[in-house]
Amino acid sequence: MTNIQLINEQTLRAHFPLSQSITDTIEHAFTLLATTEVIMPPVLSMELPMVNGEVDVKTAYVPSLPTFTIKASPGFFDNPSKGLPSLSGLMIVFCAQTGLTKAVLLDNGYLTDLRTAAAGGVAARHLAPKHCPTLGIIGTGMQAKLQTLAFTQERNVERILIWGRNTDKANQLAHELSELLQKPVHVETSRQALVEKSQAVVTTTPSQTPLIDASWLHSGLHITAMGADSPVKNEIDPQAILTLDNIIVDSIAQSIERGEMRRVQSQGLLAQTSPLITLGDVCAGQQIGRQHDEQITLCDLTGTGIQDTAIANAVWTQMQRQGLGTEMPAN
Amino acid sequence: MTNIQLINEQTLRAHFPLSQSITDTIEHAFTLLATTEVIMPPVLSMELPMVNGEVDVKTAYVPSLPTFTIKASPGFFDNPSKGLPSLSGLMIVFCAQTGLTKAVLLDNGYLTDLRTAAAGGVAARHLAPKHCPTLGIIGTGMQAKLQTLAFTQERNVERILIWGRNTDKANQLAHELSELLQKPVHVETSRQALVEKSQAVVTTTPSQTPLIDASWLHSGLHITAMGADSPVKNEIDPQAILTLDNIIVDSIAQSIERGEMRRVQSQGLLAQTSPLITLGDVCAGQQIGRQHDEQITLCDLTGTGIQDTAIANAVWTQMQRQGLGTEMPAN
Repeated sequence: MTNIQLINEQTLRAHFPLSQSITDTIEHAFTLLATTEVIMPPVLSMELPMVNGEVDVKTAYVPSLPTFTIKASPGFFDNPSKGLPSLSGLMIVFCAQTGLTKAVLLDNGYLTDLRTAAAGGVAARHLAPKHCPTLGIIGTGMQAKLQTLAFTQERNVERILIWGRNTDKANQLAHELSELLQKPVHVETSRQALVEKSQAVVTTTPSQTPLIDASWLHSGLHITAMGADSPVKNEIDPQAILTLDNIIVDSIAQSIERGEMRRVQSQGLLAQTSPLITLGDVCAGQQIGRQHDEQITLCDLTGTGIQDTAIANAVWTQMQRQGLGTEMPAN
Repeated sequence: MTNIQLINEQTLRAHFPLSQSITDTIEHAFTLLATTEVIMPPVLSMELPMVNGEVDVKTAYVPSLPTFTIKASPGFFDNPSKGLPSLSGLMIVFCAQTGLTKAVLLDNGYLTDLRTAAAGGVAARHLAPKHCPTLGIIGTGMQAKLQTLAFTQERNVERILIWGRNTDKANQLAHELSELLQKPVHVETSRQALVEKSQAVVTTTPSQTPLIDASWLHSGLHITAMGADSPVKNEIDPQAILTLDNIIVDSIAQSIERGEMRRVQSQGLLAQTSPLITLGDVCAGQQIGRQHDEQITLCDLTGTGIQDTAIANAVWTQMQRQGLGTEMPAN
């Protein structure tokens, strides 16, 4: 008789806030991806047009971790009209040595939010210019908030600029972030002005048309583009991508299949960009993401299974230490 | 606050034995696959050679069912040396309209055993000759037993022949089945003799070399080959497949990618076989699997995500009706 452990969203939120420790976990995961024999199959993606939905399944096996995780992420975009969140889902933690189920993390997407924000924190740590007084955020959703928090844990940001299609939401987020961070947060109505005033910009939208033009880029700018995670999404003008000094991606295959490099490739421009560097290579010190303060850099984050395995393993480890969650006989 | 329901293997085994009702559920699923707009993505398959393991993830979305399921099936083949079963895993049941998690079925592979056996039952129902006094079973594992039970629920079998590489295991299974079914069950030491004496044969092994030769086939024989579910496995001689009157498969794509048609295709013989018919088309009455008692038929079962969605939906429905399982707050 073995037991499995269950933990729900409320308990996870109470015990696992966004922190540099989570960014460390995700940084370590990217290092392992670049330096060890990680098995990370392509995303299983199921489009459900009849219900305006989609389901992604991600996983990765990391030999040096005691567990691996399979994550199911449903997105049902008519849910808000029913008073329900669009995103839900859960993570299943398996023993890496026996495959037996160890835990079910009923996070409703919370751990995905965390590990996604933490990848932004890793990008900030390695790629943003050291002196970064102004951070620009494009988008007003959950990741706009969490990416801001993750970034400000890595750099001494003095003020934050926010642009959103919906000005009410932008104002609301600005208010919330200024309370949380005790820093000035302003809404910009022009994306161009936002980019020109910022040393680092994080794009966090599901946009299908580019939001950042080539002509707005300036010396020293770092952009983290974390919105695009499917073939139709695109936040950065392909022409802008051609002018970048360094392009860093979480996964080369995914960036080309479902990230910012997709349109670059479909327009036949892939050979004209700087060579793609993985964030793992940068974390591991095998590549340098930013050689000097004048470079213009982009980090494209599509979301990888190894982030799920890494954050769930960290949560599972803490559950053991602290006796969190409830137990149930597994057989 | 919504709740999710949890149920474990022991409760599932107590309340859901193999029955014709489960075969009906799987038959209905195959009918839906052939007649409605089912979304069934390719299997997510992760090979883990460093731990002699593999993990498969299967799913299917059936618009007419209230739920869909994602199933994770780890197979870690060094587990028996640790006193653990090779196969484990679980099924996650989601609401088809909102994507919210409804239930976690901690079945450790039990429901996979059932839906796999039930597909054999469906094949027997539609493809085995009506008069089927002798059933031959190749293999001695869990599916050898369950396929026998599913088959004998569909045809009036008078005796059963068993062949296994391991004669002790064959003897043990013969004893167990004769007790269960109150019918004569004999161990055959020659596969050829077993095939020649049987009107229907079910192959249930992970063999990588064919176990049934072309020269052994005889008028009226039906074979269900359910062992091969990965590119390296193969139970039926490709030359035998060329001589069949009708070839029925659970999924044409999967049979060619990871079933009995794989080697046929890799040998360039696919154009020389009878046209592949799906089991769904047969269940839906859109094709006839067996036109008369003299035909030789094969049903190749690779295991499909729609079987998982269908059996988990049936289990979930019963859990509601009977108040089975335990509840846990999901958020």
